Amino acid sequence: MFAEIKGLNEECGIFGIWNHSQAAEMTYYGLHSLQHRGQEGAGIVSTDGIKLKGHRNLGLLADVFKHGELKNLQGKGAIGHVRYSTTGEKDLNNVQPFLFHFQQSSFALAHNGNLINAVSLRRELEASGAIFQTSSDTEVLAHLIKKSQTGNFWDDCKMALKRVQGGFAYLLLTENALIAALDPNGFRPLSIGKVGDSYVVASETCAFETVGAEFVRDVEPGEILCIDEKGLHIEHFTKDTRHSICSMEYIYFARPDSNIAGINVHSARKRSGKMLAEEAFIQADIVTGVPDSSISAAIGYAEESGIPYELGLIKNRYVARTFIQPSQALREQGVRMKLSAVSGVIKNKKVVMVDDSIVRGTTSKRIVQLLRDAGASEVHVRIASPPLIYPCFYGINIQQQSELIAANYTKEEICQMIAADSLEYLSIDGLVEAIGRPYPDEPYGGLCMAYFNGDYPTPLCDYENGYVFNRK
Amino acid sequence: MFAEIKGLNEECGIFGIWNHSQAAEMTYYGLHSLQHRGQEGAGIVSTDGIKLKGHRNLGLLADVFKHGELKNLQGKGAIGHVRYSTTGEKDLNNVQPFLFHFQQSSFALAHNGNLINAVSLRRELEASGAIFQTSSDTEVLAHLIKKSQTGNFWDDCKMALKRVQGGFAYLLLTENALIAALDPNGFRPLSIGKVGDSYVVASETCAFETVGAEFVRDVEPGEILCIDEKGLHIEHFTKDTRHSICSMEYIYFARPDSNIAGINVHSARKRSGKMLAEEAFIQADIVTGVPDSSISAAIGYAEESGIPYELGLIKNRYVARTFIQPSQALREQGVRMKLSAVSGVIKNKKVVMVDDSIVRGTTSKRIVQLLRDAGASEVHVRIASPPLIYPCFYGINIQQQSELIAANYTKEEICQMIAADSLEYLSIDGLVEAIGRPYPDEPYGGLCMAYFNGDYPTPLCDYENGYVFNRK
Amino acid sequence: MFAEIKGLNEECGIFGIWNHSQAAEMTYYGLHSLQHRGQEGAGIVSTDGIKLKGHRNLGLLADVFKHGELKNLQGKGAIGHVRYSTTGEKDLNNVQPFLFHFQQSSFALAHNGNLINAVSLRRELEASGAIFQTSSDTEVLAHLIKKSQTGNFWDDCKMALKRVQGGFAYLLLTENALIAALDPNGFRPLSIGKVGDSYVVASETCAFETVGAEFVRDVEPGEILCIDEKGLHIEHFTKDTRHSICSMEYIYFARPDSNIAGINVHSARKRSGKMLAEEAFIQADIVTGVPDSSISAAIGYAEESGIPYELGLIKNRYVARTFIQPSQALREQGVRMKLSAVSGVIKNKKVVMVDDSIVRGTTSKRIVQLLRDAGASEVHVRIASPPLIYPCFYGINIQQQSELIAANYTKEEICQMIAADSLEYLSIDGLVEAIGRPYPDEPYGGLCMAYFNGDYPTPLCDYENGYVFNRK
Amino acid sequence: MFAEIKGLNEECGIFGIWNHSQAAEMTYYGLHSLQHRGQEGAGIVSTDGIKLKGHRNLGLLADVFKHGELKNLQGKGAIGHVRYSTTGEKDLNNVQPFLFHFQQSSFALAHNGNLINAVSLRRELEASGAIFQTSSDTEVLAHLIKKSQTGNFWDDCKMALKRVQGGFAYLLLTENALIAALDPNGFRPLSIGKVGDSYVVASETCAFETVGAEFVRDVEPGEILCIDEKGLHIEHFTKDTRHSICSMEYIYFARPDSNIAGINVHSARKRSGKMLAEEAFIQADIVTGVPDSSISAAIGYAEESGIPYELGLIKNRYVARTFIQPSQALREQGVRMKLSAVSGVIKNKKVVMVDDSIVRGTTSKRIVQLLRDAGASEVHVRIASPPLIYPCFYGINIQQQSELIAANYTKEEICQMIAADSLEYLSIDGLVEAIGRPYPDEPYGGLCMAYFNGDYPTPLCDYENGYVFNRK
Repeated sequence: MFAEIKGLNEECGIFGIWNHSQAAEMTYYGLHSLQHRGQEGAGIVSTDGIKLKGHRNLGLLADVFKHGELKNLQGKGAIGHVRYSTTGEKDLNNVQPFLFHFQQSSFALAHNGNLINAVSLRRELEASGAIFQTSSDTEVLAHLIKKSQTGNFWDDCKMALKRVQGGFAYLLLTENALIAALDPNGFRPLSIGKVGDSYVVASETCAFETVGAEFVRDVEPGEILCIDEKGLHIEHFTKDTRHSICSMEYIYFARPDSNIAGINVHSARKRSGKMLAEEAFIQADIVTGVPDSSISAAIGYAEESGIPYELGLIKNRYVARTFIQPSQALREQGVRMKLSAVSGVIKNKKVVMVDDSIVRGTTSKRIVQLLRDAGASEVHVRIASPPLIYPCFYGINIQQQSELIAANYTKEEICQMIAADSLEYLSIDGLVEAIGRPYPDEPYGGLCMAYFNGDYPTPLCDYENGYVFNRK
Repeated sequence: MFAEIKGLNEECGIFGIWNHSQAAEMTYYGLHSLQHRGQEGAGIVSTDGIKLKGHRNLGLLADVFKHGELKNLQGKGAIGHVRYSTTGEKDLNNVQPFLFHFQQSSFALAHNGNLINAVSLRRELEASGAIFQTSSDTEVLAHLIKKSQTGNFWDDCKMALKRVQGGFAYLLLTENALIAALDPNGFRPLSIGKVGDSYVVASETCAFETVGAEFVRDVEPGEILCIDEKGLHIEHFTKDTRHSICSMEYIYFARPDSNIAGINVHSARKRSGKMLAEEAFIQADIVTGVPDSSISAAIGYAEESGIPYELGLIKNRYVARTFIQPSQALREQGVRMKLSAVSGVIKNKKVVMVDDSIVRGTTSKRIVQLLRDAGASEVHVRIASPPLIYPCFYGINIQQQSELIAANYTKEEICQMIAADSLEYLSIDGLVEAIGRPYPDEPYGGLCMAYFNGDYPTPLCDYENGYVFNRK
Repeated sequence: MFAEIKGLNEECGIFGIWNHSQAAEMTYYGLHSLQHRGQEGAGIVSTDGIKLKGHRNLGLLADVFKHGELKNLQGKGAIGHVRYSTTGEKDLNNVQPFLFHFQQSSFALAHNGNLINAVSLRRELEASGAIFQTSSDTEVLAHLIKKSQTGNFWDDCKMALKRVQGGFAYLLLTENALIAALDPNGFRPLSIGKVGDSYVVASETCAFETVGAEFVRDVEPGEILCIDEKGLHIEHFTKDTRHSICSMEYIYFARPDSNIAGINVHSARKRSGKMLAEEAFIQADIVTGVPDSSISAAIGYAEESGIPYELGLIKNRYVARTFIQPSQALREQGVRMKLSAVSGVIKNKKVVMVDDSIVRGTTSKRIVQLLRDAGASEVHVRIASPPLIYPCFYGINIQQQSELIAANYTKEEICQMIAADSLEYLSIDGLVEAIGRPYPDEPYGGLCMAYFNGDYPTPLCDYENGYVFNRK
Repeated sequence: MFAEIKGLNEECGIFGIWNHSQAAEMTYYGLHSLQHRGQEGAGIVSTDGIKLKGHRNLGLLADVFKHGELKNLQGKGAIGHVRYSTTGEKDLNNVQPFLFHFQQSSFALAHNGNLINAVSLRRELEASGAIFQTSSDTEVLAHLIKKSQTGNFWDDCKMALKRVQGGFAYLLLTENALIAALDPNGFRPLSIGKVGDSYVVASETCAFETVGAEFVRDVEPGEILCIDEKGLHIEHFTKDTRHSICSMEYIYFARPDSNIAGINVHSARKRSGKMLAEEAFIQADIVTGVPDSSISAAIGYAEESGIPYELGLIKNRYVARTFIQPSQALREQGVRMKLSAVSGVIKNKKVVMVDDSIVRGTTSKRIVQLLRDAGASEVHVRIASPPLIYPCFYGINIQQQSELIAANYTKEEICQMIAADSLEYLSIDGLVEAIGRPYPDEPYGGLCMAYFNGDYPTPLCDYENGYVFNRK
């Protein structure tokens, strides 16, 4: 049962806008800048005040809307969603926003995050006769809202939000309002911007740059907000809150030009690289980073260490979903599609290879091999985050513990497995300092560090019995 | 008439392989690594020893072959082509390789470069009754070969190659041989590699990395080579040769991991940045480069100047051909799709913005504006090549002289037009030194510097009267 | 509200099979022969005993399954649906079969017909918290089944079936059974066949011919049947039944090679034509029919009257959905896409033009004009059914009364409006006799004649107040 | 070599129009009515007086132009082509009209028919250096025109037309004229019509009905005509002519509403059926025809014999190219896609099954079987044309003699092979009389009867040695 629900809304991007004459188009551009958060599917729902209309499909945003579908999405309000690719669950039904029609009204719903009590809630709802159309945990919220029946939609929403647990940033569109809500820990980022007379809400501030909006403020944990003809209205649906911002957003998931809790992501990464150079310096000829997410950290490492930074690894910009991958035979013959090592730069050099993280270790092993094939005399791997040991239940698709190499092997064993000359990680404290403690008075400065130390900021609910946390 | 022929085969990528059980598939991967040389169209022709079969279409390689078309291209030899997008000439007929069928035999032809006597030759051929199917200058060579009628295909090819002038790297596939040829100036790069028992020929050495091949040697100016069951055989079709390697390949066109004439492209670019820092240092807070082609030069500038290198500009990886571009109204409102400035990094900083070149000046102006909008206190533009003043006739799609800003305005005027605080270019000598004089005894060390100084290494033939070269 | 629900499942085709190694493929061929019942959308759901899998889309069956989607639909049981095109309601969500997933089980549902109490039921269900995904009345049954909660699926189905009213033929697939049900009046046809060890259920017997099955028996009004590993089991969910077979199925909707209630459709039509010749003979040179549905009646008319039957009207076989229709200007110039009159046959002839029915009169007018343009000296229109005066609420998409020309004008007025030389209809009694009174002891021999005389065999429920039945 | 050229332009439809503000659109509708002549590919070329623009692709007309391609084809003149599907030669390159660009001018060419000296001409042209882009014999004419070089395009055309032999109806479009030509035997139909101030030329007169044009006159054998701003001008390119109109056009190829040489096709077919009833009457219960092409003859047979005509066989209207065909296993189980026998009509009846012709016999055998499976007590096959014994070289895709069942077996043997109770053909004289001797003073009244008696009206040129004509 876990497998069917888990992971479905993880690592997504959401964007909403209210009071703009081209709301759907603006949402398209906003989603465009959030495309790195989800390439599996995309959708937009807009409202013209009377009716909600939507379009969604599997694929990249540009493909989903390539036949002029935007033209049908009139109106002054819109929300959109881009969805991450999780193997084996590619199903149009799970592409968001979901659109729910009733005889009297409609609403659309988009979700970034992962609920930890979705299985229990769904069991309970089905027992009372509810019919679910998708295997997504997002639909649970819709049923909870519908069942609340306080007679007031805003109160229905608040009542429903109190029942869901885990990581969630929701956008909800009705005929006459845009509603947003963030979980009580603020696991996922969600910010408010303004462009002209229009409010926008987005997973990352980079979307504001793209649509020409100015940053207003972040949505805080436990908040629900409504944007309608009366403007922006914010309340708490719960006061039992605490900041636990996903540190993985800083490490590799967010775009470098976004700010989360006021901290620029590129700068946080560069500082991680510098901190790593302090904690784990090694004499070498060049520093190189794994494109794209580790470049900032690599530059930081180079700057701090004084070792020149070079483009030792090139990522092919044109590796698309439709690409035919080499057969095993050709792969053994050395055919490679995604990354190339620049032998003209690497040859006979001692190389420091900076990466943001190691999950299974297979990619690291391949890159070390690439560098050696290109003539590197030594390859020293430096990871700009601590070892990943614990799974995430709040919306980052980190594999089961059994697949996390650092949960099963020592640093020395891993170094040997990836065939590096040396391997070092950034420390937990080093990471917290490098990111910069956005909320200095809260644990870990307001960050969630559970992947590194198992210190989950909430009970685990449905997942409680699903995992055993042992460390070698 | 010029407009119809000019530019059609410019800036392409070609790849061929002989004696490989999966020749077409290898060609696909080879072309994949050359995709940056052409995104408009792609095609592959293979031979099984008896018949030539091909598939080609408009679009990116992965899209062209996404429905399993590779499976039909059996055989041990293949050639492929990726083609650059030139506005308004998108026509399936012009996508290569061209496949010519005769009652007795067939051959396929792929071309990178631009002929300077194609109009004259075509006029002559049509007068004698020839029918052309395309507006491409490539077809001229096929007619010349067919008309040669020496009774020997190899001699027909050599006779035809003596008649065409300009920049050309050709690949030609028959049922039982792969033939390649390079123009007498070697304007375009073309290299030979080997993987197992198979020879490969490619526009850039980065393709060798991708298919697991080892570099054998470059094709030299005026050479024709044949690969067949007897192996590799190389001759000169003319001895009247000289190296005039396109310097633009080093500056922005080739992939940083390629080597041209033994010189790594990233390293050449980084040296250009260092040289630029020497020639045109300015005190600033950060150095940033325009992704992707100027990153190497920017790193070089930062390293030499001691000013920190930062990711001040982010390129959206997902801007596809199918993307809906913002309307003028939205663009004025600040909606941007491709580049973002990282305000978290730029704000209140003096910025050195390094770019590889300025063509019309419009892009530079836009980027300077982006940086200022993001809060840069000063923007100093540094160009890692000399001013572009003269058009190219050998295969780089540089606009007409009237569109080259540096052909019409002084440096000071351009600085004002792009609204920079200062503007400096690399010198011609500086560029030649930075690239590294691959052929030290030849003019400009074996490079073509015509775009910068009008010193064309050949007569201009059909283009002689089409352009007047005045400099303000 | 009516507009949103009415018409959504009208005039569809359904097919199911159990215990066949290629169940989905057989369903595809079965639906193929039912394609005339619905060209808007198609879908198939199959079960392998553990899981239900489905595929559906807008478009013709062949287009919906053209990319090999059948291969994913493994298993020994399957149901399928083809859906009629109702203007303005083209929505993928409404394409059937619907697939409902629960934590413990799943079922799929396909429906032919129209409920008359769907609005009331939906209002009631939504009030209790149900969320509907579609605007289709089919979903109502799913919610009723889910709410029944007798603890036994078969009883849940029976309880739900007692609540829905109107015209319905349902197919329902679970992991281990195929269930079918027919409304208490048997408005829509539904028959059982057998091929090898497999049972099939289909809207028309022509599907049995296509899949090589033999006819077993019709499903009777008020019956529910189950096919599973124990074989075929039939019960009544209600005993309050009466035959009211839609006479329009005989007149124009069903395929001529189908038998309904044991009566061949072509033969019924031919007899209608003969009866029409008896009731409304006129001396003429040729008889011609409007292809395809009126050919049988025209042949009957010719045979009975002794006037030669000719192909006076030709239908273009290639008019597809994607066809570009002539602009108004070109239409006025005489450009026609669908029907042509054969002037070589028509010229200077007195023509009897036999058609199956007149709805709005616009088509008849156009055809009379076509025949006159082709040189007919006289055009006598003979309609092989009585005037259509009353709307249908049981699943035939007959327009609102205001659009039915015969509800608003006299025969003489209509004759003038369509510019015919004479116009005659078949009488109600004549039609009942011609079809052949399948159930001689029941009113109208077991047929529903409500369109002609307003004698609806059931109360009208939600529609009661929606229409006023006046006749001029 | 034969296989490569033979058959490529057989059985096509062509349409041209001059002086119409929506020339391309009119051509689209004209081709639409000629779609039965070719479903493999379609194309249109138009001219705006300065430039020729075209679009063509594999597939049905509606699919080829479904993305708005017509909008790009501006101008007052246009020609179009629909192409027949010949197995294994599906190649976009062979889809017409062909468009030839020269430095000074362009022309487009469309062809219906088959040349009998194409191989010789192509060999000769290639020997002189010509490059062919297609395997189509149509391209030969373009090269011949180009080589003529009389200094006058009209004379070039006439000179080229004198060299090609066989069956051909050509349309040729230049920037300022529409040219048409018909072979000296007039094998293929070609007619001139007029709509407003525009002339149209089409393969069949049914296209005139569709576009609202009036018939002007047929193009006569050996004629070339030009339509330009001066109007219609007709000449003979040769006076050595004779009428040899393809009798197959009447028998099964043309549309029943077309007139060829003034004779309506449906009427000719109906007369064939009547004549067949005279020549080969048999007592039976019903007459049925194989849809669609044999319906007219069956009606004629019924009318003459007095036996009732019934819809005993139904063709599925929705069998599209994309249809998935039943696997062999399912076919053996009785799954059928295209034709159904109406058992309600057939059961226990003596059936006369009228068909237009027998080629290989496999289809006839299948239909007889269908009728027997549906319960026919006897099946008597009556063919409304004489036995097909000789191949056609002028443009009808009749198989090689080895595949013509009547060339290899006696009538009695065939009757046994197709398992009929009796089999009779129409006589050669009967067919000539039934069609009606359009040119009474010429052999066979101006018809080509070669398929039946080997009396080819021309020498066979390249085909002379390819076939041996023996009859059992």
